[in-house]
Amino acid sequence: MAGCVFLSRLSSLIRGQVCCKVSSCAQTRVRRLWCALSCSQLHKVGGNSGLAGKVDRFGGVTVDLAEVGLPADISEDAFSRLLRDSLSQWKAEGRMAVWLRVPMSLSRCAAAASSHGFTFHHARGEYAMLALWLGGGESRLPGFATHQVGVAGAVVDESSGKVLVVQDKNKTKNAWKFPGGLSDPGENIGATAVREVFEETGIRSEFRSLLSIRQQHNHPGAFGMSDMYVICRLSPLTYDINFCMQECLRCEWLDVSELAKTSSTTPITSRIARLLLYGLERGFDKIDLTMEEIPAVYSGMFYQLYYRQLPT
Amino acid sequence: MAGCVFLSRLSSLIRGQVCCKVSSCAQTRVRRLWCALSCSQLHKVGGNSGLAGKVDRFGGVTVDLAEVGLPADISEDAFSRLLRDSLSQWKAEGRMAVWLRVPMSLSRCAAAASSHGFTFHHARGEYAMLALWLGGGESRLPGFATHQVGVAGAVVDESSGKVLVVQDKNKTKNAWKFPGGLSDPGENIGATAVREVFEETGIRSEFRSLLSIRQQHNHPGAFGMSDMYVICRLSPLTYDINFCMQECLRCEWLDVSELAKTSSTTPITSRIARLLLYGLERGFDKIDLTMEEIPAVYSGMFYQLYYRQLPT
Repeated sequence: MAGCVFLSRLSSLIRGQVCCKVSSCAQTRVRRLWCALSCSQLHKVGGNSGLAGKVDRFGGVTVDLAEVGLPADISEDAFSRLLRDSLSQWKAEGRMAVWLRVPMSLSRCAAAASSHGFTFHHARGEYAMLALWLGGGESRLPGFATHQVGVAGAVVDESSGKVLVVQDKNKTKNAWKFPGGLSDPGENIGATAVREVFEETGIRSEFRSLLSIRQQHNHPGAFGMSDMYVICRLSPLTYDINFCMQECLRCEWLDVSELAKTSSTTPITSRIARLLLYGLERGFDKIDLTMEEIPAVYSGMFYQLYYRQLPT
Repeated sequence: MAGCVFLSRLSSLIRGQVCCKVSSCAQTRVRRLWCALSCSQLHKVGGNSGLAGKVDRFGGVTVDLAEVGLPADISEDAFSRLLRDSLSQWKAEGRMAVWLRVPMSLSRCAAAASSHGFTFHHARGEYAMLALWLGGGESRLPGFATHQVGVAGAVVDESSGKVLVVQDKNKTKNAWKFPGGLSDPGENIGATAVREVFEETGIRSEFRSLLSIRQQHNHPGAFGMSDMYVICRLSPLTYDINFCMQECLRCEWLDVSELAKTSSTTPITSRIARLLLYGLERGFDKIDLTMEEIPAVYSGMFYQLYYRQLPT
């Protein structure tokens, strides 16, 4: 997917012309088109005189430096000359953007690319993806992931009206809160809640619903990126607490009504406790966003939709 | 924040010992502790014989290659020797992890670091962040952002019972859907919805509530990362459509009841249309997750909490 860019026939439009009087419309469009492409739509082009890349139908070109047969010891200067010649060719061909996939061992090529205006788009594990916008004006390349996702689980025992809460060992103010933590890559929201609850408290539980979402930007715990914090309602499968003493100072089954009125908690926990109390009294269908799994347009994949079930 | 790692006194615990019988508890804990640290808690250490880094109270060391006075033309071999000596020193000191912040122009140092086991943690713009776990066993370093966030806006005109819908020009099946697109970095969910609706349709609107969340992993439009897609309810401030002809084939105010029963729409749009119909008939308080802005523990910052307001 990383090589897919921009509808080439949009290029004249994008170079400064106004689209249907709606500002940023063209920018939005190329982003969306880009996102709708799959890598299978790429086709190879190559120059004898330059780097061989793959061009997508949006006019972007992608070069994977692991696949173009570069000498393993190519110098920064030699790569810089090769890239310069390739850029001349791509510009002459009207390409909108260039993506360079750089294996870590060839990182010196990234320094050379930097001198031609490339910047890092993202990097993971053993490779970095560099990008250069050729379309004129401000770059309209799509961004990379912006949010980490954290999930907490409110395990509610309906028979006793109690909810599982912990006090972090590391906090100065020992406020009651729901156990939780960051999602692993590719992990569903509900799975994170169940896993984190077990790791912190030893309680087994199952997912019931989503209750709230908090969005926070420039998050200190997210390398300056944004944080999405979700609270789920879970039902207990076991009841004997065996909490993590490294992580928690205390762990208890607390009356939901007590949690709803105590000052020894966080603003979010307090609000969710009042919601849970309402749910205990009037039915959780009044507060739940339940999950429905729906087949994605991409074959064999599913997504999870959380929304209010219609009252019956 | 990028240099903050791990409680050094946890090191013996982390090196294979079991924590309070709850699996992964220690792993979770160090991640959480790491996230709770701020960079102001770093303090400088330096070796005359090696790279000067900053050590946090969790026993991690961070080296910013832009700040340690490396010769601009340092060779990969020379940096590799310097790093090797530094690693010996850090290991002897019991450091848990090493972070290397590498400016793009010094990218050849990343190749050298690769030969010592470093991998890319993330990269943005002009720098890459490399990391190496020294704590033994599987790396327990916190990850980087995993999700992109897309937002659509369902602009509902309560007086007429109509909702604003578009048909994408680029899709083979022309299904009615709500206008929307990806959030810009640092942009609130509601702001994305309002902006995207205007860019696509020319309609001005204001945020009312959050209605649903969809989570999808390995998203083709997210460089293989995950996608969070949120649908908001908006109220119109203007009514004259001036839609983006590059992006949309059609744009209309459609009866919500019509959208709820047509087959010319997506599974999610259909479900949300039925929700909206219920809201029109019984009150939107039955379906809305409204937004409350709450001060964060970090001074001067706020976060947005979306949850069910308690029925009155």
